Amino acid sequence: MQNQQGYHVAVVGATGAVGQKMLETLEKKAFPLASLTLLSSSRSAGKKIAFKGEEITVKEATPESFEGVQIALFSAGGSVSKRLAHEAVSRGAVVIDNTSAFRMDEEVPLVVPEVNEKDLSSHKGIIANPNCSTIQMVAALQPIKESHGISRVIVSTYQAVSGAGTSAAEELREQSKAFLNGEDLEADIMPVKGDKKHFPIAFNALPQIDTFEENGYTFEEMKMINETKKIMHAPNLPVAATCVRLPFFTSHAESVYIEVEKEGLQAADIHEVLRNADGITLEDNPSEQEYPTPLSAAGKSDVFVGRVRKDPDHPKGFHLWVVSDNLLKGAAWNSVQIAESLIKNNLL
Amino acid sequence: MQNQQGYHVAVVGATGAVGQKMLETLEKKAFPLASLTLLSSSRSAGKKIAFKGEEITVKEATPESFEGVQIALFSAGGSVSKRLAHEAVSRGAVVIDNTSAFRMDEEVPLVVPEVNEKDLSSHKGIIANPNCSTIQMVAALQPIKESHGISRVIVSTYQAVSGAGTSAAEELREQSKAFLNGEDLEADIMPVKGDKKHFPIAFNALPQIDTFEENGYTFEEMKMINETKKIMHAPNLPVAATCVRLPFFTSHAESVYIEVEKEGLQAADIHEVLRNADGITLEDNPSEQEYPTPLSAAGKSDVFVGRVRKDPDHPKGFHLWVVSDNLLKGAAWNSVQIAESLIKNNLL
Repeated sequence: MQNQQGYHVAVVGATGAVGQKMLETLEKKAFPLASLTLLSSSRSAGKKIAFKGEEITVKEATPESFEGVQIALFSAGGSVSKRLAHEAVSRGAVVIDNTSAFRMDEEVPLVVPEVNEKDLSSHKGIIANPNCSTIQMVAALQPIKESHGISRVIVSTYQAVSGAGTSAAEELREQSKAFLNGEDLEADIMPVKGDKKHFPIAFNALPQIDTFEENGYTFEEMKMINETKKIMHAPNLPVAATCVRLPFFTSHAESVYIEVEKEGLQAADIHEVLRNADGITLEDNPSEQEYPTPLSAAGKSDVFVGRVRKDPDHPKGFHLWVVSDNLLKGAAWNSVQIAESLIKNNLL
Repeated sequence: MQNQQGYHVAVVGATGAVGQKMLETLEKKAFPLASLTLLSSSRSAGKKIAFKGEEITVKEATPESFEGVQIALFSAGGSVSKRLAHEAVSRGAVVIDNTSAFRMDEEVPLVVPEVNEKDLSSHKGIIANPNCSTIQMVAALQPIKESHGISRVIVSTYQAVSGAGTSAAEELREQSKAFLNGEDLEADIMPVKGDKKHFPIAFNALPQIDTFEENGYTFEEMKMINETKKIMHAPNLPVAATCVRLPFFTSHAESVYIEVEKEGLQAADIHEVLRNADGITLEDNPSEQEYPTPLSAAGKSDVFVGRVRKDPDHPKGFHLWVVSDNLLKGAAWNSVQIAESLIKNNLL
């Protein structure tokens, strides 16, 4: 369904943190657009959003909104996706869903183009965009796996508040001001909007992202564990994760420990692989204090890797420090990449 | 050398972040003091510090300052310790040194009283206080090791700026204000005072604590690795560490992954051990969102542990989230505990 003039794209959740970045990305990457429909909940409907110098009015998302839409980028929460994704597909759209609604559905490809683009070919109308913290990790791990094998992953994350939405970022801002003014901190949103208790995130660290599962892990941790195995086609790869929310606005950082399969590797071998990997920028020169940070990665599309080093106590153990903009490669940019790949491969 | 009236104590580095906490701790814990001498570099000499309602003038530390001193608590940087610790010992003092100057010296016990108090008995005048990030980790690990054995440790840290001194805390405060006002951030201190480059710490994460070693690890990471093995008398225990500085003022948090030796353990077995361990407070109830955070641990003496859970992918793997006030148990309180133990065991 190649279209000379471009494609009719709908963004569902256009007023949210990720929706905004999707629009910025479509504009910046010169995506071939014929038409753009902006959708949201009834609460945000009626808002106007500027796109390429034009004002577009956001409409309430209904089943009928998807008539004529070819690509629907969903990022309005899992319940909206569950309610409307199939409606969009039944009207001929391909859905790229940025929520957790369908990620572990066996019928739904879960895709990071640099890792498993081929999985797109089996799509049945819905493609899932993985969780932000998973995307950047698998982007860094896959080229190492392909060259040297990976037999184990243990990750601790350092995650930005924007992953919890614009209201979480606003809470960090307000609490930070209050703290610096010596005032009491009000906590209404973090760690999880709607959970029983709330704690200050300003000048603090919260070892809870998303709600707790019965096994003592958070849903975010289980997402990292399960999605990594699915995307990398490695159902038996041991993955252990601890996810922590921190007081910065943009980019997630991850301390990733891996064991490789091949013997005798050095840090230089990992460097070599990452230097040649798509979508990866190696920033690793300790003697010049070169390493990525959340601030340095913000606003950029790539996944940045530094602090690569061999474990002196384990012959196959290596550390990586992986940083990426959680709203770009972690969400909007990966979704748009999927759309680009669908077009390129005639999969719409 | 039991003294009915108490002991003559000197605090070297009395005007620094840790020195201040040492004075607060001596006061709060009702340490048996006969006399208190406050010492510093020539730069801070002459300052007056209130202690138990009395003003004490800080004097410049010289070899002669230690005449008559029985316990000297050093926390004025490694170079001061190297220059003056032996001078203090030669005048009859026992030195408890909070710098890295002597920690790996085979003649010097490196002590966390809950872990290896017995090592104090072999002291030759100098006792080293371990690095802050090491202390809280070994305090949590030792009881597990004693009950179940530990065969592997992989840790990623979340460390407060106060570990880099009062000027680092001030930099975080000033940068945070500037960021919230939309101004440019000036970075002159973090990640390491005097290193080649400086980066903003406000609303950021810096994967560098202390300077880099030739092997690509930071000195902080090597301290955690080497000190843990020495304190726990486990020279062959594999320890892997990544240390990260974060924008909060007080308390370090640590995501610690361990493998135990015993088979068939559950999280409840680790809970049981930690619940009965000296100096540990277990705060772990996911269904009620109970876990320690840097803010909740600040100002308290104990080491707090939460998020204890078994790795579903490894039969002997467990996660712990370990949080403690880096200036108290990580520095001042551990030093004062060592002094108390020396008194109790007639080791002065």
